[in-house]
Amino acid sequence: MHPPVYIALIHYPVLNKRGDVVTTSITNFDLHDLGRTAKTYGVLSYFIVTPNLAQQNMARFIRDHWSEGPGGEYNPSRKQAVELMKMTTDLAETRLTIQNIHGNPAKLVATSARKSKNNISFNRLREELRGSKNPYLILFGTGWGLTDEVLAEADAVLEPIKGSPDYNHLPVRSAVAIVLDRLLGEW
Amino acid sequence: MHPPVYIALIHYPVLNKRGDVVTTSITNFDLHDLGRTAKTYGVLSYFIVTPNLAQQNMARFIRDHWSEGPGGEYNPSRKQAVELMKMTTDLAETRLTIQNIHGNPAKLVATSARKSKNNISFNRLREELRGSKNPYLILFGTGWGLTDEVLAEADAVLEPIKGSPDYNHLPVRSAVAIVLDRLLGEW
Repeated sequence: MHPPVYIALIHYPVLNKRGDVVTTSITNFDLHDLGRTAKTYGVLSYFIVTPNLAQQNMARFIRDHWSEGPGGEYNPSRKQAVELMKMTTDLAETRLTIQNIHGNPAKLVATSARKSKNNISFNRLREELRGSKNPYLILFGTGWGLTDEVLAEADAVLEPIKGSPDYNHLPVRSAVAIVLDRLLGEW
Repeated sequence: MHPPVYIALIHYPVLNKRGDVVTTSITNFDLHDLGRTAKTYGVLSYFIVTPNLAQQNMARFIRDHWSEGPGGEYNPSRKQAVELMKMTTDLAETRLTIQNIHGNPAKLVATSARKSKNNISFNRLREELRGSKNPYLILFGTGWGLTDEVLAEADAVLEPIKGSPDYNHLPVRSAVAIVLDRLLGEW
């Protein structure tokens, strides 16, 4: 058992290659992969966060095709995955949405490929989740990752996934899978 | 430390939705995501296995663009990932390629979303990898998964990734990330 867990894929504000703060485009594969991974681990919703309304509408169109339209009949496992998708404009709206559902605010956990001062270990957060009833929101950045401002706003920043010492460039889809498995997986 | 580990993404023979044996198309995102995940966990190569030569050539074109062409300069982390890609026609050629490199055949480990009689647990395979110098080849199926013949040919079949009891439809990209993290990750 674990408390209500949500994840959010942030398209703004995130960094680009040069360290500028930018808005990234939605990647269609993220919509599907995050849905399936969320559904597998009992995550209640995954938020696609972007201030770009045309992009929000595109994501909504894809979600509705597979969850309410003819796609759902053709591919039921995709329906169950994408119907967990919610679109929000920014982090504040995302947090408010969760607070409106549960009555109290979610604990905010950011992720980053870089070490931070307030890193929490996977083991500690896993333990914490088992003892909590409060909702949690785990943030994943697109592009070159979440900005320092978002990391500073979080209650905790998960330690980076350590792999090869000279390579820390996991796709966000893989990072989401690994993080949820480490925090919520049973094996 | 772990022995030489390889992974292979099988496009034939795999099952479709109805249980027929089919050849699936290559998915461009797999080429990139598997490369980044392989590189993160020290996997030596990832094999894209398909008998369709036009599809092999497409994958080769993408690999060469990002590893030797102008793409490598633009995006060095993608170069390091995709240069681990190898194209093979079938499982036999894949096994022979590894045997030619290491002198002895790889232990063959299949993966499946369904339980098998000869399942090995993640913990046991993780232990085994730490004590071995022999190469390992881990197989992942596209479509609706590897055929019974391929599962029977394997030395072992990894236990399924258990998530929600009523949902076992992870994208193969996420399954690869979770399997490699469970077998090779340090946290």
